[in-house]
Amino acid sequence: MKNLDKFFDPKSIAIVGASPKKEKLGNILLRNIISGGYKGKIYCINPRYKKIGANKCYANLSELKKPVDLVLVAIPAPLVNQVIEEGVNTNPKIENYAIISSGFKETGKEGQKLEKKLKILAEKKKLNILGPNCLGFINPSEKLNATFTSGKFKSGKTAIVSQSGALAVALLDWTENLAVGFSKVISIGNKTVLDESDIIDYLAKDKDTEAIALYLEDIKDGPRFIEAVAKLKNKKPVIVLKSGKSSAGQKAITSHTGSLAQDRAIAEAVFEKLNIIEAKTIEEFQNLILYLNSDEIPGRREVIVFTNAGGPGVLASDFIGNSKILKLLQISDAVKSQLKKYLPASASTENPIDIIGDAAPDRYEKTLKIISKKYSQNPILIVLTPQSQTNPDKVARIVKSYKSKFPALVASFMGGVKVKKAAEYFLQSRIANFENPEEALLAIEKLVKYNLRKGEKIGIAAQQEIRLKLKINSIIQSAIKEKRGMLYWQEAEKIFGSYGIDLTKSLSLEKFSELELKKINYPCVLKADDPKIIHRWDKKAVILNIQNEKELKSAFLKIKRVAGSKRILVQPMAKPGLEMIIGLKRDTTFGPVVIVGTGGTFTEIIKDRVILIPPFAEKEVRGKLQELKIFPILKGFRGKKAYNAREITKIVLALQEIAPENPDISEIDINPAMFYNDGRGFQIVDAKIYL
Amino acid sequence: MKNLDKFFDPKSIAIVGASPKKEKLGNILLRNIISGGYKGKIYCINPRYKKIGANKCYANLSELKKPVDLVLVAIPAPLVNQVIEEGVNTNPKIENYAIISSGFKETGKEGQKLEKKLKILAEKKKLNILGPNCLGFINPSEKLNATFTSGKFKSGKTAIVSQSGALAVALLDWTENLAVGFSKVISIGNKTVLDESDIIDYLAKDKDTEAIALYLEDIKDGPRFIEAVAKLKNKKPVIVLKSGKSSAGQKAITSHTGSLAQDRAIAEAVFEKLNIIEAKTIEEFQNLILYLNSDEIPGRREVIVFTNAGGPGVLASDFIGNSKILKLLQISDAVKSQLKKYLPASASTENPIDIIGDAAPDRYEKTLKIISKKYSQNPILIVLTPQSQTNPDKVARIVKSYKSKFPALVASFMGGVKVKKAAEYFLQSRIANFENPEEALLAIEKLVKYNLRKGEKIGIAAQQEIRLKLKINSIIQSAIKEKRGMLYWQEAEKIFGSYGIDLTKSLSLEKFSELELKKINYPCVLKADDPKIIHRWDKKAVILNIQNEKELKSAFLKIKRVAGSKRILVQPMAKPGLEMIIGLKRDTTFGPVVIVGTGGTFTEIIKDRVILIPPFAEKEVRGKLQELKIFPILKGFRGKKAYNAREITKIVLALQEIAPENPDISEIDINPAMFYNDGRGFQIVDAKIYL
Repeated sequence: MKNLDKFFDPKSIAIVGASPKKEKLGNILLRNIISGGYKGKIYCINPRYKKIGANKCYANLSELKKPVDLVLVAIPAPLVNQVIEEGVNTNPKIENYAIISSGFKETGKEGQKLEKKLKILAEKKKLNILGPNCLGFINPSEKLNATFTSGKFKSGKTAIVSQSGALAVALLDWTENLAVGFSKVISIGNKTVLDESDIIDYLAKDKDTEAIALYLEDIKDGPRFIEAVAKLKNKKPVIVLKSGKSSAGQKAITSHTGSLAQDRAIAEAVFEKLNIIEAKTIEEFQNLILYLNSDEIPGRREVIVFTNAGGPGVLASDFIGNSKILKLLQISDAVKSQLKKYLPASASTENPIDIIGDAAPDRYEKTLKIISKKYSQNPILIVLTPQSQTNPDKVARIVKSYKSKFPALVASFMGGVKVKKAAEYFLQSRIANFENPEEALLAIEKLVKYNLRKGEKIGIAAQQEIRLKLKINSIIQSAIKEKRGMLYWQEAEKIFGSYGIDLTKSLSLEKFSELELKKINYPCVLKADDPKIIHRWDKKAVILNIQNEKELKSAFLKIKRVAGSKRILVQPMAKPGLEMIIGLKRDTTFGPVVIVGTGGTFTEIIKDRVILIPPFAEKEVRGKLQELKIFPILKGFRGKKAYNAREITKIVLALQEIAPENPDISEIDINPAMFYNDGRGFQIVDAKIYL
Repeated sequence: MKNLDKFFDPKSIAIVGASPKKEKLGNILLRNIISGGYKGKIYCINPRYKKIGANKCYANLSELKKPVDLVLVAIPAPLVNQVIEEGVNTNPKIENYAIISSGFKETGKEGQKLEKKLKILAEKKKLNILGPNCLGFINPSEKLNATFTSGKFKSGKTAIVSQSGALAVALLDWTENLAVGFSKVISIGNKTVLDESDIIDYLAKDKDTEAIALYLEDIKDGPRFIEAVAKLKNKKPVIVLKSGKSSAGQKAITSHTGSLAQDRAIAEAVFEKLNIIEAKTIEEFQNLILYLNSDEIPGRREVIVFTNAGGPGVLASDFIGNSKILKLLQISDAVKSQLKKYLPASASTENPIDIIGDAAPDRYEKTLKIISKKYSQNPILIVLTPQSQTNPDKVARIVKSYKSKFPALVASFMGGVKVKKAAEYFLQSRIANFENPEEALLAIEKLVKYNLRKGEKIGIAAQQEIRLKLKINSIIQSAIKEKRGMLYWQEAEKIFGSYGIDLTKSLSLEKFSELELKKINYPCVLKADDPKIIHRWDKKAVILNIQNEKELKSAFLKIKRVAGSKRILVQPMAKPGLEMIIGLKRDTTFGPVVIVGTGGTFTEIIKDRVILIPPFAEKEVRGKLQELKIFPILKGFRGKKAYNAREITKIVLALQEIAPENPDISEIDINPAMFYNDGRGFQIVDAKIYL
């Protein structure tokens, strides 16, 4: 693991490309570092100047000859590699570089070449490089703004990590406006050397950081990412805003960073498994940061909504009523009767507690006093609309005085002109104030969900026991030699068999005459067994429900003629059962995943599937099966018998085993496997292995 | 239809409860009307004073003896009815009242009584009454602020109608802050007389109003509401934010207004049918209002995203990529090559057009000039993040200079401190600026969807041809007499038969001996035929797949014994087919609706259903069937035959006919109807008629 302590908390910084010219990046960096109040040493590097402002200027890093904890590089891309070499060759060697310069892989072929050289150099010399094509970073506790964006930034508990410099700029400007602080802001740019996983490793140990918020366009190394997040052991929540979740978005990413497209569903399954909090929009991302700036992660799911406004109270109730996570706290009768003593008759002492529109500040005060005695550990949302008697400024002060009692207290003072001052007061007082109650509740919901799952252990990849399966290997190798993309049925049968899974007994033949001595059970089915015919239905290469030899012959010849298949499969017609799909897919980022869901005719219709990320054990598979829409049928529905989940699990676990042991298998598609609830087990009537 | 022209545009107003005391509602109203700049006559009414400020004060309405277009009532609830009576008895009679006072049905029994009397009085004397328990209304074009909330309100194109006074207060304060104007703001309070439908009727004719935005907790009269919206004929879009869409929300509504709970799915289906734009959150509601304040309803679905920031551009692409409505405009090669002339190599001329972070204002100018020539009719979203070379203020001015060219131009200048001035400039210039690109695109998406459906005709309930079905009536009446909540199978069979629908031929018997002379086709099914046994599976009152007489007898006795059913139904075992559910439900607000969806075992699993709102014709039913998840199976899937949609439609249309002609039937539940794609038509194996 890389040690980045000196990188983000340097005692000395050299700015390569420092300049007296205001419009130059090197000048902006220098100004930002000085005006931020950085206390360490600053060395300017530029052969054109002897002095920049009050700072002495060195021609190059070799001339400097002093230990430097961090080098900021802000010179044209073609000159960058040379500067790094200089740094490596100085005595003492410099290890840490943040390359602000753009002009690398995001610009095309020439840039890609430069970046490749940079990567090789860094690996050879064991250098830590942030960027290139990044904004730099900010460490507020050291008053260090090592970016080219200006501003007065406050300390806080959350670290922001962004793959988009522009988004980081907008977020920083937003945090400054809202007086939201952070522990670090790190722009990771092209991620040539340091990527999100390295930064997570660093932030895991950073004492200032209690939560990590990442904007990611791609994940560079899936297994590394899983490992880095798993190591956090839920001690610091991770929030991710992931873009590229549509083909249009992926196209946009490729055109601006050259990153590879990634499967949306798999990324979501990984986030879910790792208890990562996924923000679906920029606003959700911001609102989670806003919440964590001032409040603790809510320990309970029963929320108190406290309002002077009926309508917004109803909308808050709707949100909670439709939430699978949050509930409205039941107010006890004792508390209700305390509240009733001074509240008007038309107020509501049920949750949402509605002290109605004519509530003056004292009604807020009295109510908070009573509920803080019993319910201070519950999340509380204080909703206000500015009516004639309201006095939002005074109420804001009252809310502030109760902030220390409620670790999870947020406000939603709704409106504009009349709540402006109160909103500003909240900013100064580190109280999260949301534009409307639904936004506040969404942030609370996501954090409560995180908290509820904190106890779960996240499995870390154990070393795989690699079995030698020479027979399998020879099958696969011969298929590769024949340039087949898919295995024949009987090859697939052997591979599955060696993992303990039987396929439906079938005959594969080239000529009808091969059938002569075989006994066929009717009704039966004919299918093409041909690596070129993947979508058999589309090619009219399946004929069902064949009743006798005459029909069989005509069906055989028809498939030969119409589909042009060389080999044809004869299978008994499977009895109707519960049709499931079980598949193995390899994701470019996260490696193998196993998918289980409703199969057969209903596959496309109900889109019912779960994704399992290895490594998983039987228990996890069974837990995931419960998320299927079809689960009620599995466990026995309306007086019908249950299915044996162990049989499904067995196939899923076999696919998990197959994946690492057979890297040439790119995909497996079992669809359908027919399961029976009458003791007949299952029949795998179709199984394709792709290379 | 009520004429409310004088109500909302009065030449004279009497304020009952006017007062010189600053804290009194009557004083606040008076001050707001005067300071708003209202030009009509103002009469103060209060027996305690001779003069209030510069205004003469009358003891009561009888003393006034002058024509008054509108009376504002702001006195304690128990005195209100008397004031209305006075108004009615003056010469000339006063017809229009806005009752600001609370203390009616929202407070309990006493208030309910008062409100009932008020309603009877209004109906008898044909009065228009807004409220009670409302904020009043604002008519900016007449500079009339007849509410107790203060502010400087601008004219605009959208009318806001709110069932929550508090939400209206918050919205008004928000609009003032953002310089958003509106044509009217009407708080409808308890809706004792005037309800949302009356207001829609009025706004339909109001020349200032081009769009209507409603916050509703309940809909008072469903058919009236449908009629009022249908009459708009899509000439003015209707936006609805509907609360009470969860049981928690409904409980909150009941506790604060006493309104009835309404079915969420049915309300949503009504909105969909009427092409009403549904806002799911307060934010969506506000963003639609914000959009309509400055832009026209977008005429095209192909959006241009124009950005200086890659990350936000990707997130915008993701939104559009995942939208069923919006698309990214394809930029023509000619335009691309024009753009390439001055854009740097790493910029993107694909949509999103990304002029990258170092873009100075002139790059915005040049780009807008080129794309405005060809694409001014497309919606355009201009995204900006404040980087060092950006100069948001100058860019805002450039954007403004192109506003007249693009009828649907919105901005998302992201950040805080650095974009503050630009945001303020946008407010003054009536340019909608959203906090992030996703919010802007959601507003555009909803309005494009509205626009795409504008051409559809919305049917208005034609007079129903009432057939006399005496036989049916006698069946139903005898069941009512016997206090049965459900009909027997053979009764249901007769009712369906008279609407042209056959149920599966079945025998209903009390004793096994009744079977003696009947021929039974095996396999068969036994079911309880008992109005007390609704959930037969739960009561073990169904036995399937009976193969012979011996099994039949034992099954018969078992159902008798275990389920205690008096009558038992013998049915042939239906062959497996496509199982569908078809039902009739009566909604408390909207009356009868017909539901069609996937039935049988899959009913609960895939939750696949559509709701049809009468009146509908065959074409609409067929259109709706296409929305079913199961539709690909209906139309023939993977080489399988299609089902005859006409057979499904026939049953659906019969239920539509049954509903108005048999008001005592509360619900019909056909589940399943088995459909076959082999020419065998359908089998209705279970059909329950509830009273």
